[in-house]
Amino acid sequence: MNRSIQDIPIAMVGAGNLATHVARALYNRGFRIVQVYSRTTEAAATLAAEVEADYTTRIADITTQAQLYIVALTDTALTQLLPDLVQGRTHGLWVHTAGSIAASIWQGQTERYGVLYPMQTFSKQSAVDFTTIPVFIESSTEADTELLFSIARCLSGQVYRASSEQRKILHLAAVFTCNFTNHLYTLAHQLLSENQLPFEAMLPLIDETARKIHLLPPAQAQTGPAIRHDYDVINNHLSLLDIHPQMQTIYRIMTESIQRKENERLRGGMEELRE
Amino acid sequence: MNRSIQDIPIAMVGAGNLATHVARALYNRGFRIVQVYSRTTEAAATLAAEVEADYTTRIADITTQAQLYIVALTDTALTQLLPDLVQGRTHGLWVHTAGSIAASIWQGQTERYGVLYPMQTFSKQSAVDFTTIPVFIESSTEADTELLFSIARCLSGQVYRASSEQRKILHLAAVFTCNFTNHLYTLAHQLLSENQLPFEAMLPLIDETARKIHLLPPAQAQTGPAIRHDYDVINNHLSLLDIHPQMQTIYRIMTESIQRKENERLRGGMEELRE
Repeated sequence: MNRSIQDIPIAMVGAGNLATHVARALYNRGFRIVQVYSRTTEAAATLAAEVEADYTTRIADITTQAQLYIVALTDTALTQLLPDLVQGRTHGLWVHTAGSIAASIWQGQTERYGVLYPMQTFSKQSAVDFTTIPVFIESSTEADTELLFSIARCLSGQVYRASSEQRKILHLAAVFTCNFTNHLYTLAHQLLSENQLPFEAMLPLIDETARKIHLLPPAQAQTGPAIRHDYDVINNHLSLLDIHPQMQTIYRIMTESIQRKENERLRGGMEELRE
Repeated sequence: MNRSIQDIPIAMVGAGNLATHVARALYNRGFRIVQVYSRTTEAAATLAAEVEADYTTRIADITTQAQLYIVALTDTALTQLLPDLVQGRTHGLWVHTAGSIAASIWQGQTERYGVLYPMQTFSKQSAVDFTTIPVFIESSTEADTELLFSIARCLSGQVYRASSEQRKILHLAAVFTCNFTNHLYTLAHQLLSENQLPFEAMLPLIDETARKIHLLPPAQAQTGPAIRHDYDVINNHLSLLDIHPQMQTIYRIMTESIQRKENERLRGGMEELRE
């Protein structure tokens, strides 16, 4: 028995953005990371040094002494390496950290498994406050679900249980709210720099758009020419985008989608129309 | 002569979201709003009471005593009403507040004209800190440009001169970063609620996405399956969206655009490819 939850020996499999942020958060909360595995020496050694762990670049040398194995590899690497990872280490609890991979990927390979999915956009250059990150957990047994819950609660104030199906939807929603949103910023950056305008001028608008969504449901917070059906502005914008056909397509489709959603909302329905 | 800039009598033409926020900001900075015009009595009276002004619902009764007339109407109303507004009041400086309407709309109607465009998303329900809002100004004479600049500087820490062409681009960029971003939140909200998941779980991710853009150029902040060319995840997401064809189209086009932009970036080019 471990005297406290922090005494559980943890192995970190992976040393990328996500692995780094999770390992740091665990380390800062007093957890004991015994080993870091990465394919490359540099990544393994860097993260290991930071969290006072050993490291290895060989799967065969991954420790058998850990009780919790946290796997933060690319989805493809996870799928390929999984049998080699668990072999000889099926005593431990194995969890992956991927939004879109079902917990059942572990089935038939090992008995104790699960998922610990922190939903956030991690860049190595940008520190994050892990305590505010929602973490979604799932496990093969109730005891391990509770164990994961307790560990996750040490890291974050927002821990939820979520099924693999729900987690897929969460990941999909995150792609819309984070990845696609960031790409809209990229397109705006391009338009502005082509016209000698500073991207910084957009920051207050970006901040307010994010802030407002804490106060109003997004459908109610919608503003702009699309929802006003202001075709003078819309057609003007489409003309400005004649030189950027892909942005023009995005503009057109987003405008249509805003108007369609508003029509549904006004009719009181929440289901999307089938086309 | 006015003793101070705050003594200039101002008429507010319009009482919608934008008019309300501009009038409030002026009033709170000690400016004197002499009259509010709105088509509807309720809107006119409400805003007038708040800023201690008179009000009218008749264009013929708009005061001739103002020196600055700020017009915050819909683009269509502005275009239609413009001749009646300025008639008999061409002594004053007339400015509109619309991102996408050129200053030249006033040409031939009156001599002293311009634009005061605060770039923000205004909802009546949500208070904003006007001091952080970028304001873009333009005027027909250098003297009036300086006057507008001084007035705008009383309201906001970020005042820029921008030509009508630049302002159109700013407005277009704002549609991408604010209106389209908010619509992505709406789509995520729908996906989550269909799967019994709380939209609140997205807020830390939304906040971090906005925060990160203060630190990194958007192209460098990009994360997610599109930029990783992770087709397992992408195809999985597209399947989940089979029941939502319009979201599926948005997912596909945004993914392509992210990949195209990244290819351009890696080639070191900034121009968008012609299709």
